[in-house]
Amino acid sequence: MIEQEIAKRVEEINQIIERYLPKEEGYQKTIFEAMNYSIRAGGKRLRPMLMQETYRMFGGQDAVIEPFMAAMEMIHTYSLVHDDLPAMDNDEYRRGKKTTHAVYGEAMGILAGDALLNYAYETASKALGQIDTKPAVGIAFAVLAQKAGVYGMVGGQVVDVEADKRGETTIAREKLDFIYHLKTGALIEASMKIGAILAGATKEEQDCVEQVAEKIGLAFQIQDDILDVTSTFEELGKPIGSDEKNQKSTYVTYEGLEQSAKDVEQLLKEASMLLATIGKDDAFLQELIRFLVHRNK
Amino acid sequence: MIEQEIAKRVEEINQIIERYLPKEEGYQKTIFEAMNYSIRAGGKRLRPMLMQETYRMFGGQDAVIEPFMAAMEMIHTYSLVHDDLPAMDNDEYRRGKKTTHAVYGEAMGILAGDALLNYAYETASKALGQIDTKPAVGIAFAVLAQKAGVYGMVGGQVVDVEADKRGETTIAREKLDFIYHLKTGALIEASMKIGAILAGATKEEQDCVEQVAEKIGLAFQIQDDILDVTSTFEELGKPIGSDEKNQKSTYVTYEGLEQSAKDVEQLLKEASMLLATIGKDDAFLQELIRFLVHRNK
Repeated sequence: MIEQEIAKRVEEINQIIERYLPKEEGYQKTIFEAMNYSIRAGGKRLRPMLMQETYRMFGGQDAVIEPFMAAMEMIHTYSLVHDDLPAMDNDEYRRGKKTTHAVYGEAMGILAGDALLNYAYETASKALGQIDTKPAVGIAFAVLAQKAGVYGMVGGQVVDVEADKRGETTIAREKLDFIYHLKTGALIEASMKIGAILAGATKEEQDCVEQVAEKIGLAFQIQDDILDVTSTFEELGKPIGSDEKNQKSTYVTYEGLEQSAKDVEQLLKEASMLLATIGKDDAFLQELIRFLVHRNK
Repeated sequence: MIEQEIAKRVEEINQIIERYLPKEEGYQKTIFEAMNYSIRAGGKRLRPMLMQETYRMFGGQDAVIEPFMAAMEMIHTYSLVHDDLPAMDNDEYRRGKKTTHAVYGEAMGILAGDALLNYAYETASKALGQIDTKPAVGIAFAVLAQKAGVYGMVGGQVVDVEADKRGETTIAREKLDFIYHLKTGALIEASMKIGAILAGATKEEQDCVEQVAEKIGLAFQIQDDILDVTSTFEELGKPIGSDEKNQKSTYVTYEGLEQSAKDVEQLLKEASMLLATIGKDDAFLQELIRFLVHRNK
């Protein structure tokens, strides 16, 4: 039931994103192809979906959210394209498909990531045209940039990569929490917060949504660690056991599988209760976060 | 005389940029250091200088231009950091200093570039707080994103890199013009146009300034090609003769040294005359563009 509903939303979101993708023509044809290949390789569209549903929960109705949804997926995608590069995680497959640099070469992989990151802001800046009637657009923009950057996602990536390169097989727990909060949490927080901001939520509501998102982000990342141990290549579409192979500390390393699963439940429960305190019609969003956190791939 | 005046402006611009650089503290310390190292490695600060002087020429006086000046230099710098990577030009030196990846490693070189690009938008978005009183900020933002991206600088980089990888030793002249216009021209156009926009220039004035910038950008790039043939490592702070070594088509390959030098003069003359038609006090800007184009390093 919820699976079908989510599949429908994914389709809807894909159509929105498609409208913002560049046409594959002109001298830059290859980069347009590499950008679109990266985006179309799929994924759960989790971030734009959370953004859209938060927007709807607060009564948001018009299309001002759409360039931000597309921009968010572009930023998420660029981060994966660069993460997969030979100098980073050196992954040839993601979601069962060849990674961008594996298809287009390393130089084009770097440039496709750069292009997607920049195009995210170019896309979101289309919404700035509506700023006269919607001053919240400027605030949403600033949140996007802040959560994607060195005090957000990139900051988390850096600390993660650096711990790897140093061969820190046991990352201090505090540092692990920092990495999870920024690397996975920041864009999820940005997604829900931007949805709230653009729909005109109060400052208190925005803060509450951000806390909900923080809990969802952490639960989502712990579930990722669990699946890396318990899933298969076919289910995940990428190599499993990669954390163990890379001798990487994860939440599961610290807490064990059983406690990790319990913590996922606890976080989900907390997120759910907090979301309910806002007092809006959160029925679908509640189902959605339960489904996303409980996913098996 | 003009040298001293420009050195003073560079100092002033460096102080503005410094105010927007991240503090080197916390878990992400390394990336903050790598970002600041890349920015502080120096350079002519050509783009923020043209932005500021165009802003002043149109009567702009307040500090709304400053985050855009810093953002522009961050975007320019990220593009150099990524250009220098092993998978791209594989350069160990720039401006007589070790390149970012040569100091911090390849993974951190990629992430430092990503971080600078994103931080540029984070920095510029600080100006969005003033959008109530200055609606032009939104337009300036959109111009920045467009000129930096696939229809601007990144687009030029891609076509350049692709021609290199294919071993196109004779790039079609039309394609070379396209590369020069986007790779070098786009950010110079953005710089001057943003200066004009934020100072409240009319649409006609903005377009005129953009054309001036296009000519300056091309003259600047041709001068770059000339210096690659005629200068020394000591003067340039980077290896010379790299175009010939890499069997790369340049403007000089097509036109020869003598004609190239003549074309630089012609472009400068056209830019200068066009700038004069705007009818503002352009004395310093005129001197500046002459100096920049005639530089010997």
